[in-house]
Formats: sequence, C-alpha cells, structure tokens
Amino acid sequence: MSFTELDKEYMLRAIELAKYGRFTTSPNPNVGCVIVKDGTIVGEGFHKKAGTGHAEVHALAAAKEQAKGATCYVTLEPCSHYGRTPPCALALVKAGVKRVVVAMVDPNPKVAGRGLSLLEEAGIIVEVGLLTEQAEALNPGFITRMKLKRPRVTVKMASSLDGKTALKNGLSQWITGPQARADVQYYRAQQSAILTGNKTVFADDPSLNVRYQELVNSPAFDSALLDETNLRQPIRIILDSHNKLTLQEKLFDLPSKVLLVSLSARDTASFSGCKAEVEQIICTQNENNKIDLHALMSLLNQHEINDLWVEAGATLAGEFFKNNLVDEFILYQATKLMGDQARNLVNLPNFSTMNDIITLKLHSVTQIGDDIRLINHRE
Amino acid sequence: MSFTELDKEYMLRAIELAKYGRFTTSPNPNVGCVIVKDGTIVGEGFHKKAGTGHAEVHALAAAKEQAKGATCYVTLEPCSHYGRTPPCALALVKAGVKRVVVAMVDPNPKVAGRGLSLLEEAGIIVEVGLLTEQAEALNPGFITRMKLKRPRVTVKMASSLDGKTALKNGLSQWITGPQARADVQYYRAQQSAILTGNKTVFADDPSLNVRYQELVNSPAFDSALLDETNLRQPIRIILDSHNKLTLQEKLFDLPSKVLLVSLSARDTASFSGCKAEVEQIICTQNENNKIDLHALMSLLNQHEINDLWVEAGATLAGEFFKNNLVDEFILYQATKLMGDQARNLVNLPNFSTMNDIITLKLHSVTQIGDDIRLINHRE
Repeated sequence: MSFTELDKEYMLRAIELAKYGRFTTSPNPNVGCVIVKDGTIVGEGFHKKAGTGHAEVHALAAAKEQAKGATCYVTLEPCSHYGRTPPCALALVKAGVKRVVVAMVDPNPKVAGRGLSLLEEAGIIVEVGLLTEQAEALNPGFITRMKLKRPRVTVKMASSLDGKTALKNGLSQWITGPQARADVQYYRAQQSAILTGNKTVFADDPSLNVRYQELVNSPAFDSALLDETNLRQPIRIILDSHNKLTLQEKLFDLPSKVLLVSLSARDTASFSGCKAEVEQIICTQNENNKIDLHALMSLLNQHEINDLWVEAGATLAGEFFKNNLVDEFILYQATKLMGDQARNLVNLPNFSTMNDIITLKLHSVTQIGDDIRLINHRE
Repeated sequence: MSFTELDKEYMLRAIELAKYGRFTTSPNPNVGCVIVKDGTIVGEGFHKKAGTGHAEVHALAAAKEQAKGATCYVTLEPCSHYGRTPPCALALVKAGVKRVVVAMVDPNPKVAGRGLSLLEEAGIIVEVGLLTEQAEALNPGFITRMKLKRPRVTVKMASSLDGKTALKNGLSQWITGPQARADVQYYRAQQSAILTGNKTVFADDPSLNVRYQELVNSPAFDSALLDETNLRQPIRIILDSHNKLTLQEKLFDLPSKVLLVSLSARDTASFSGCKAEVEQIICTQNENNKIDLHALMSLLNQHEINDLWVEAGATLAGEFFKNNLVDEFILYQATKLMGDQARNLVNLPNFSTMNDIITLKLHSVTQIGDDIRLINHRE
C-alpha cells in the first residue's frame, strides 16, 4: 500500500481530531474522521461519547451530498455492527464515498475486518495501514482490552530519589510539587477507572476524583481538549477484601461511581446513604487468600474498563508487578532524599539473583516543575 | 562594561580552548586564551598541566611580536604571583598588549585582583565580566576550594527506580548498563580524587581507576579532548579509620597515588610493597568516633584536591549528606525495581517531619543507554 503526502496530511488531521475525545469516550475508542472531495476537506468529526454519533457520522453530516465520490480518512476501521449506534461502514456506503483510508483495523472482535469487508463488497476502494502506530497510540487501553480481555494497567507512584514514599511515621505530604500533582490529575481525567486498596483509603482518606481547578496547572493541559463541562469522573475501584470500609470515607461522599471489590458480599442497603453510586463486585481469591488480580482484570473487562490507573501503596503495587499486570509505570520523582528508614516504594519478594528483578523499558523522562516524571513500559 | 559580539566570539573560543585541559590541569584551573590583532587571531593557548606554561604564555608564544598592541581574551584573571611559573600578568605587560578582556577574577587569594591591578598599573585597558558564568563552569572545583577551603564534593551513586543498590544478599552487578558505567569512567577522568570507604573496598574490591577502554563508550566522550596519552589517574582516597585494609586489595596493585585516611598511624613500611604510591593521612574524629569529614575536607584542601568524587555505600554517602558537604549528587537510575528487601541507597536519620528531609535542585536529566542520569545540585 502506498500513500501520498496528502493522504498523510489528512490522516494526521483525523488523528488530531480523535484526541478531542480522550477525556470522554471511555469505554469507546477515540476516533477521528476527515472527508475530502476534490482536494478540499468537506467534513470532519470525532467520537465524543459512548451512545452518541461516531466520528464518521459527524463527518458525513458535515459533508452532506459532497460525500459522494469523496475519500474518507478514518483512524479506526469503521464499525460493522449495530451497537449503541448503527454501523458506520453502512453509512459510508449509503453516502457514496469512493475510497476509505483506514489507519488501523478495529481490534474489537465484533468488528475485526468486517467493516472493511462491508465497504469492499460495496465496491469502495479500501486502503489500510496509514500512520498505524500513531492511531494505535490514541487507544492503548481499548486495544489492550480487546486483545487481552483485560484493562491496560498503569501504576502511578511518587517517591524521593531514594525510592521512599513516606517517612517512617507515615508523613508524606508533599513529596512532589504542585505541578506534578496537577499532572496526575490530568492523567486521571483520561482513565476509565482509578484503583486503590482500602489501606490507602484508611491512611490518606483520598477523594480519588478529578479536580479541574488542579489539573489546569498540568504542563500538558490544553483547554481546547478539556473544558470543565466535559470533565468525566473515572470509576473509582477500591479493593476491600473483607468489607472493612465503613462507607463514611470521603470518597463515598462524592458523586460518580465506586466499585467495591471484595471476597464476600456485604450489606448493600447502606449504599443508598452515599452520594457516590456504589456497587460491589465479588472476586475470587488467590492461593494467598487475597483478591486474585487476574480474575479481577477479567471482571473489569466485563465492566468495559479500558484504562486502569492504579494509585496504590507498596503492597498492592507490588502485587500488580508480581502478577505481571503492569503495562505502564509512571513514577514522579522529587529530587529529595528521605533515607533508609523511610517507607519503601514497592514490596517484592526477596530476589536471590539479579535476573529475577523487575526490568522496565524507559519510554520518556520529563521535568515537571521541580520534579521529574518517568514513564516506563513493559519490557 | 559593554562588550561587542566579536568580544563574545573570541571569549567563547577561549572557553573552548580551556576545556582541552579538563583531564590534566588538576590542581590548577582550566584556562583558555586568545590574542587578537587587527581582527585576526594571532595566538591561542590553554593550560594543560600544573608546572607547564599557562594559557597566556602559550598564546603569547604563538603571537610573538604581533602581541604588541593586541587584545588578549582570557577566561581567568592572569596570575600575579611567582608559582610554578612566572606571573602571566607581567608577561602580558612585557609583550605590550593594549587591552585585556577577562571572564572572571581569580578566586585564588594569591591573585584575587592583583593580576588586574598589575595590568592596569602598566596602562593596559582591562575589562572584566564577559561570559563569567560559562567561565565559572570550567572550574567548579577550583572555585569552590578557593572560596570554601575544601574540595567540591560530588557523590555518585547507581540504583534501581525504587532506590535500591543491591539485593539483600549483596548482589548488584549490574544494575546499570555499560553506557552508564562508561559515563562514570568519563567523569572519574576529570576528578582530582576518588573517595570511598573500606567497607566498599572489602565488598567490591574495586580498582577505583580510570579505564580508557571503557570511557570511550561514554556518550560524552570526545577524542579531541582526551586521548589515552593524556589520561591522568585521580588520587584514590580510602577512609580506613582503624587501619583494617591489608594492602593486598586490588587498588594497591595499580600505579597512581592512594591516600589512606585513618584516625591513627599505621606501619608505613609495608607501603613499599605496593605498586600504588601509598600515603597515610591522620584525621581527627567526630563526636561519634568516626573520621570528621569537615576536618578531612580541610586536609584535602591542603592536598590541593579541587574536585572530589565520592563513590561510597549508603553509610558513608549518608555521612556526606548529613554533614551538608554534597555540592552535586549524580544518580544513575536503571528502570528496574528491586523491592523493599533490597539494600537502601542512603542511610539518614529517622526524620520526623517532611521539612527535615534532604532537598536537592535538579540540574539535568539525561538518558544514558537504557538508564537515566540525574544531576542534582545543592539547593
């Protein structure tokens, strides 16, 4: 397949459009679409929110009758199934487009090439594979969940240079500066769900929500992409094996969904007293009588969690690493030293050889205020 | 003082020249000199090694009679005292230069403006303060020692992302990759001395020397600045309070100087059996009956150690931090996790408030191979 420089330009525009959805589309993927007729863009669109029109629908609506004979650039294969909306591939056929350029095949097994076939069978020229890598980067969580039947897991932590998260007496506010904390808010806003354990809830009584007034201070913040009205609160997931949370904790006093993960059922009548929309899911236990994280990941797949953001303490974070479930590890490091007696970043087994330790691959390192942010990926 | 763009260009050239000395001048400062006559560079020079000609001497020798009426650009105030060589200020007067532009005043109390006065008294136009910051960056150790009567201390360490330096069983080879280790060699080559404790010697039996074959793999390596023939071995300084070293350790089997720092004298007769040139210095003890690091710094000032490179374990590194003696902290971090049971980076007191922890200022962060190098300065 060979694409022209113009093809590339239009697809880049479609990719830019797709980004406008990143704070709202979950559990759907981010998709952008550009329709071009006689060298002119006649329609553009992106997917904003599950249940509303897909990118192609918006672009076709803008293009109207000019879509006939046009080329459609779309970052993800047009859908072929009747979901919350009718199939986009059919809409493109009906509109009479001549050629469809697709960045990547939809990894959703409900689509997976069927959208392309539908177009081809209608006599449309279909070309796949332009800027695939950049299109994939729009939807890492969606792709991971479609392929692996589990969310993409990002573990986020903050520490001193010597890998400490709190003093021996538990004090930790604040290791990192306001810009780093704002950056965390900006990341949180893009997640399907934020997960932590009840230990963290007891220790810090966190809200685990996204605070617009804070995230505007992130160096990554772009008001064109996110204004306060389209802020979506990620689902908050709390591991509470033995139902120890009292529901009086701060996080239950904020609207938006809370998923309680336990090993046994609790009295759900008390949920009605919470401002949060609380739901319990029962998970199986592993050989250590703890919540089986692999089983939990399957449950979260059923809950359509694409991007799971874990903000946990040393024990739970360690469990994710031990279970080889960490796709991304984001560490905010303050240029401080807290010493050997302070609390450790992550609890892991007593490794006996250097081959056993956990090795990650550096993706990027960025200065954020006085701190640095290291993004590491699975090796 | 106002300088022209041409002035700046010539001084930048002098600064570039000065850098050619960085592996060899210790304990002298790096200095570069450019002599310009009628818009043409007629002489250049840099200081290469203590006891050999200063930068101005080399530049004057190249300029010969063209120095008469010329402008001399020099990165450091010309010396006024008879040291290992005669005063350069006098040489400039004798050569008949018309104007001398100086980047910075010499912080050496033996000079400290006297060189400038000598020039001015001879009727030469003297202008000071062009590119001072860049000139200072040529000689951080020299400047620190002249001002504070102690070496500039850089503590270098290597750890995992969670601040661990070795497994519980002591295994640590290799946390960082070959490029990071080559980079350390390149840094070592620029130091006056490398310091460690006897614990590290017993644990790792290190050579503590500079290995040319390794340092060529540093991303910073520049063969124009350092070829194998001008490689100088830094003095190796080992803290050995109670004379526990046997002298059979590997570092004694390599030529170049070793300074043993103890609290009491040992039998120096055995030194003659070592390939290394061994010398003992006796230091006073602090209230914990350990070597008093402040007293040691005074002794190292007398030994003309400008740049002290500390490669120590958690205890000794912690002592330098506790004594507020760390000017620069270079941490090579591997994107790995070793867990809570692995060994800690630095031993510090059990701080009771977050205000007590050690805060540094990030100077730079650079990817080196698969690892990152964080350079932090005193806040």
